[in-house]
Amino acid sequence: MNEEQQNVIYVGNKPAVKYAAAVAAEFENGANEVFIKARGRAISTAVDAAQISINRFLTGVDVKNVEISTEEIENRNVSSIQILLTKTE
Amino acid sequence: MNEEQQNVIYVGNKPAVKYAAAVAAEFENGANEVFIKARGRAISTAVDAAQISINRFLTGVDVKNVEISTEEIENRNVSSIQILLTKTE
Repeated sequence: MNEEQQNVIYVGNKPAVKYAAAVAAEFENGANEVFIKARGRAISTAVDAAQISINRFLTGVDVKNVEISTEEIENRNVSSIQILLTKTE
Repeated sequence: MNEEQQNVIYVGNKPAVKYAAAVAAEFENGANEVFIKARGRAISTAVDAAQISINRFLTGVDVKNVEISTEEIENRNVSSIQILLTKTE
């Protein structure tokens, strides 16, 4: 699966439940895995979105992997997170 | 290694660099692994602290594992993160 085909939800400043709903929609549309990505202060929201989508919106989906890294944006180092959710059933 | 012997840095509302320095001190005092834990909005700070400690304060230490979960605190669900850093050399 190349980069273009991945299902990615980018988390920003909206409430976490909005992103959780977007994640759930991806799985309901047939995705087997969804990446949730965020930078900086949105990292907390990304974790909330993952947990809400798993605990409230979906069954048979769980966190498969979490990666943290640093990206350089406009000469500043910004932390980022990538949460991979996959079907378990 | 039981729970009492683990090296854990709990991240709150202070600047990330303070926690990064605390993490670095643990390794400099001989720890082979350090857990960074945070809840809610402090999750972003925990990721910053991990990245700063690895990229700026330490050599031969990397992220071994990241776990996210939900804790119930005073009847509210709160997201949490646990970042495990270990020596690689």
